[in-house]
Amino acid sequence: MSKTNPGNCFEDFRIGQIIRHATPRTVTSGDVALYTSLYGTRFAVQSSDVFAKAIGYPRSPLDDFLVFHIIFGKTVPDVSLNAVANLGDAGCYFRNPVFPGDTLSALSEVIGLKENSSHKTGVVYVRSSGLKQDGTRVLEYVRWVMVRKRDEAAPAPGDHVPRLPQMLEPRLLGDACPPLEVTSYDFDLAGSPHRFDDYEVGEKIDHVDGMTVEEAEHQLATRLYQNTARVHFNQFTEGKGRFGRRLVYGGHVISLARALSFNGLANAFHVAAINGGRHVAPLFAGSTVFAWSEVTDKAELPNRSDLGALRLRTVATKDQPCGAFPLRASDKDDPAVILDLDYWVLLPR
Amino acid sequence: MSKTNPGNCFEDFRIGQIIRHATPRTVTSGDVALYTSLYGTRFAVQSSDVFAKAIGYPRSPLDDFLVFHIIFGKTVPDVSLNAVANLGDAGCYFRNPVFPGDTLSALSEVIGLKENSSHKTGVVYVRSSGLKQDGTRVLEYVRWVMVRKRDEAAPAPGDHVPRLPQMLEPRLLGDACPPLEVTSYDFDLAGSPHRFDDYEVGEKIDHVDGMTVEEAEHQLATRLYQNTARVHFNQFTEGKGRFGRRLVYGGHVISLARALSFNGLANAFHVAAINGGRHVAPLFAGSTVFAWSEVTDKAELPNRSDLGALRLRTVATKDQPCGAFPLRASDKDDPAVILDLDYWVLLPR
Amino acid sequence: MSKTNPGNCFEDFRIGQIIRHATPRTVTSGDVALYTSLYGTRFAVQSSDVFAKAIGYPRSPLDDFLVFHIIFGKTVPDVSLNAVANLGDAGCYFRNPVFPGDTLSALSEVIGLKENSSHKTGVVYVRSSGLKQDGTRVLEYVRWVMVRKRDEAAPAPGDHVPRLPQMLEPRLLGDACPPLEVTSYDFDLAGSPHRFDDYEVGEKIDHVDGMTVEEAEHQLATRLYQNTARVHFNQFTEGKGRFGRRLVYGGHVISLARALSFNGLANAFHVAAINGGRHVAPLFAGSTVFAWSEVTDKAELPNRSDLGALRLRTVATKDQPCGAFPLRASDKDDPAVILDLDYWVLLPR
Repeated sequence: MSKTNPGNCFEDFRIGQIIRHATPRTVTSGDVALYTSLYGTRFAVQSSDVFAKAIGYPRSPLDDFLVFHIIFGKTVPDVSLNAVANLGDAGCYFRNPVFPGDTLSALSEVIGLKENSSHKTGVVYVRSSGLKQDGTRVLEYVRWVMVRKRDEAAPAPGDHVPRLPQMLEPRLLGDACPPLEVTSYDFDLAGSPHRFDDYEVGEKIDHVDGMTVEEAEHQLATRLYQNTARVHFNQFTEGKGRFGRRLVYGGHVISLARALSFNGLANAFHVAAINGGRHVAPLFAGSTVFAWSEVTDKAELPNRSDLGALRLRTVATKDQPCGAFPLRASDKDDPAVILDLDYWVLLPR
Repeated sequence: MSKTNPGNCFEDFRIGQIIRHATPRTVTSGDVALYTSLYGTRFAVQSSDVFAKAIGYPRSPLDDFLVFHIIFGKTVPDVSLNAVANLGDAGCYFRNPVFPGDTLSALSEVIGLKENSSHKTGVVYVRSSGLKQDGTRVLEYVRWVMVRKRDEAAPAPGDHVPRLPQMLEPRLLGDACPPLEVTSYDFDLAGSPHRFDDYEVGEKIDHVDGMTVEEAEHQLATRLYQNTARVHFNQFTEGKGRFGRRLVYGGHVISLARALSFNGLANAFHVAAINGGRHVAPLFAGSTVFAWSEVTDKAELPNRSDLGALRLRTVATKDQPCGAFPLRASDKDDPAVILDLDYWVLLPR
Repeated sequence: MSKTNPGNCFEDFRIGQIIRHATPRTVTSGDVALYTSLYGTRFAVQSSDVFAKAIGYPRSPLDDFLVFHIIFGKTVPDVSLNAVANLGDAGCYFRNPVFPGDTLSALSEVIGLKENSSHKTGVVYVRSSGLKQDGTRVLEYVRWVMVRKRDEAAPAPGDHVPRLPQMLEPRLLGDACPPLEVTSYDFDLAGSPHRFDDYEVGEKIDHVDGMTVEEAEHQLATRLYQNTARVHFNQFTEGKGRFGRRLVYGGHVISLARALSFNGLANAFHVAAINGGRHVAPLFAGSTVFAWSEVTDKAELPNRSDLGALRLRTVATKDQPCGAFPLRASDKDDPAVILDLDYWVLLPR
């Protein structure tokens, strides 16, 4: 019996199956320093223990996307090693803050299976959760991927397509944020005077700055997340493939866009939920990433006068500044667009 | 009103203005590990808690230039985002050691303003300070930059050129260094037998080794310092600019030269002050940095028999070894020279 | 007298000489995060404090090769700065686990000297040890290098060739591993069901994945280890040399192969000893590293029912997948092979 992990094929999954993913991880201030070094993120809550304590956290929490990438990375060897395509993510809630010293692990439940008519592939739907050492849930999301069948003749497990999460409920958006002492929130140190009430639905913000991506950087990032997807690391194989290049992990683009969004959204210190996102086009090293955002909705949180939630569409481009808010060219995606992310952030009121 | 930071133009500054810069930062052993990884620095005091404790520190302090770069980075969005030129730095004293767990923030006072005769730009002088969570000052320096005016017709604020710091006072050079137990200073572990008394004014030292700089490295460093100056990160824009390349942050060159200077100055464990420095020529990724130093002065510190101070001129070059101590070619700077730094270091006696 | 370190020449060594190497190092969770980022290593014991505690460690120990590289790096300025060739390493035992917060230093004893007949070089044999702050030994190994003579006419110190370590003693292999609570070892979280008893002598495992190496990555790694060997960092000089390229530190290849070996050896969480290794061919940035392993021996440890030891031969290649277990091409090394490592790992029973 081979001892290397061949990954799961479509017929290896069954509805209700629980997968405990390998390699729990104790996160540390070392991970935080690397994250800063990779993206240059500047949100004060995540940067300064003193700032975080003043407003009600026990100390600086980890950046939300650092947590997401670590949890996501754990699911790769079991869920998507044989993926033909990542079809979607949805319904990602951040449920509890994560601090240096916490140990994270990941668990997935198979909630849907649908064989494709070709009998060569099928769609697998999983609900994945990130957990702390004490069982506390730190995040959860649904993901669906198209996975190869090992054997075309293998019987299908029976189709079951789950109801996908729609619009997230505002009452859950504050879960990972303690009650805020807004009077102690120092807007000078945070880098902007703009609060929840200063943003309007329909408002568009060009984040102005650009960041060029190097091969070493996205590899360091993706390994930090212990994500083993081969397309990010293996130039020997990818050089012979469709693009001739290593693909940059889509989460690297998300973190770059989030860091760039500080310029215009400096007080949007917490990502509360991700409705969904599309990696519209691949990114390769050597390109420069830009981003812009639109406020697509606003929500007050029940019983929270400290915070409000903005729903954002953040679009990232490659080698194209975003002053003109690029998105569509005639009826198609603008070819410069690489990410179209729909998510909720919290700001003080 | 735009929510992105357009940076300050000349007419936005006024004498006596105090700017509290954004993004306080809790420094950690993660930052220290990255700094080691970026420069390979080997000074024992900063590398080993046991070594540092034996001689009188509570634990290893952060490298002085790591502290400088973090404080400097905070001032960029407010002071130099619209800078046409960095004209100078002077009078930088390190006042207190910084340890992992400390939270740093930065504050600048506008101490001088002088409009240029073109009415297109003006010179802004600031005194910047780095502070700990308890208000303790960790460093201070004066910097002057040429900044664009938004509107040529805008009235000048009235010229005021401050007296610039000259030669630093030796009595302040020991501020950031606790009383030293020199008998517990292990010269074997420090890597050299040479003490304060072994160095002579006029002595030149070739630091021999060379270090090639990669794009990913200087970007990781500059983001670690949360320095947002665009010229370091954006190949899309810089590729169309004067050099066609991203510029390496000048502080990266300083840290490389300092790390290289270990070979010849292993016991010069603490940078006490920076008189001034010139970034003589730009550095781009792909070049190899070399360095040499000259002892230009020596000073005893009042009431300190443990330590002495050397004033050093450290010169860094690109793609040129320093055995011949390159500096000037006929009446001009040697074209290989990129840095000419004038600073004080402390050594045990 | 020059203050830069010229390194030792053959005639500077004498039998019995003890060299205390410079720059002790307090290792931290920052070093651990960087190591993860550089190699993507996924062994649960080193990744999760909770996992490590459950089976009997006080917390996650450092990766064994991270410890090795840090100790090895300290010996470079004294032992191999003037080395013409690294001839071998042998008899490396890991004696105690290392945890964040420990301070490491290195010490070497000269145990053999043999002048070459050319009178231009000689072979120096050292036994090097890594020590903690309290004097505890964390590892030891024997290394022999060919070193230049400063002066061909200098008298030889008299030849003394030590007996080199042969096969390591199984009773010492468990030294750095506390008694294991195997019932608390979670094989799901560890990523594989395969225990000591599941492996057979002669079994070969293709580790499947490939990792492309970038210049910035191996430089960051080698500086993290404070290893100053010039061939890894100085493109200006190396560009004029034999290969025209910077050489990747051999230890970087070892760590890559070890991280790749997780896929097939996920429960081989501890490297107990290194019998020896050959860096068969140089690696340069841009190549993709693959690896495969063969189980060459098995050993039970006296009085240890918790653990067993596998002796492995791990072979790394560049730009060649390892499905065919490449090693020799006719009578010569396969030109794709870069590393041939012989070592012992521990697995739960």
